[in-house]
Amino acid sequence: MQISHIEHVGIAVTSLEEAIPFYENLLGFKYFAIEEVEDQHVKTAFFKVGQTKIELLEATSPESAIAKFIEKNGGRGGIQHIAFAVEDGVANALAEVQEKGGRVLDKEPRRGAEGLNIAFMHPKTSCGALVELCEDPNKK
Amino acid sequence: MQISHIEHVGIAVTSLEEAIPFYENLLGFKYFAIEEVEDQHVKTAFFKVGQTKIELLEATSPESAIAKFIEKNGGRGGIQHIAFAVEDGVANALAEVQEKGGRVLDKEPRRGAEGLNIAFMHPKTSCGALVELCEDPNKK
Repeated sequence: MQISHIEHVGIAVTSLEEAIPFYENLLGFKYFAIEEVEDQHVKTAFFKVGQTKIELLEATSPESAIAKFIEKNGGRGGIQHIAFAVEDGVANALAEVQEKGGRVLDKEPRRGAEGLNIAFMHPKTSCGALVELCEDPNKK
Repeated sequence: MQISHIEHVGIAVTSLEEAIPFYENLLGFKYFAIEEVEDQHVKTAFFKVGQTKIELLEATSPESAIAKFIEKNGGRGGIQHIAFAVEDGVANALAEVQEKGGRVLDKEPRRGAEGLNIAFMHPKTSCGALVELCEDPNKK
């Protein structure tokens, strides 16, 4: 697969309302979008930092992966995933991972925040880190 | 503080030898440096991805922060920290954080991998995420 850059870093937080002031007042970023992704049971806030984005994620339901991450992390937020922008398509990337014996959490690309096509690899394949692959379908 | 970009994302791994092939063979990166940082009890491997680097960290001693992170994470690796490049100096950034009521793990910048000046903020201040601030002293 052809990875161009880190599209975003996903950070789980217990509350967007508490976390946004840290990123704005201390780090000097400005959020440019807040979005609810219903099928993932999260609310997200995005900040642009150079070529990459920070995606803050707050759970909207206990069944969300973010709620489970925070629970396992002793009730605290933390860095939950890293998302790489693939230039030759998420579907191709998923096929390549599986051909090479890797495992994926999503067999097919699905729609994520900001209208991106996304898919997650299995953390066992990526040595513990949760890795997302994504592409902007409007950039073709 | 003036943050220009994400300098690197630090990923804890149980073994560099096992993790490097994932990043090379599946993601298509090529590591450009392996370094031991003795006072942090870690061995690191770096990959460049666009503007940012991936820093893989393997503990060389049980007292390393990486060993403790992996232990808390059920024996698995994971994304341990995010490092922002500050343009106006780490010392200034640390002063600003504390003036604004934030907490830091390092009161003064210290030397990290790749000869950078680095300092960590306290995760309570950064809503759970472990945030590093860094600058390249040779870029002044």
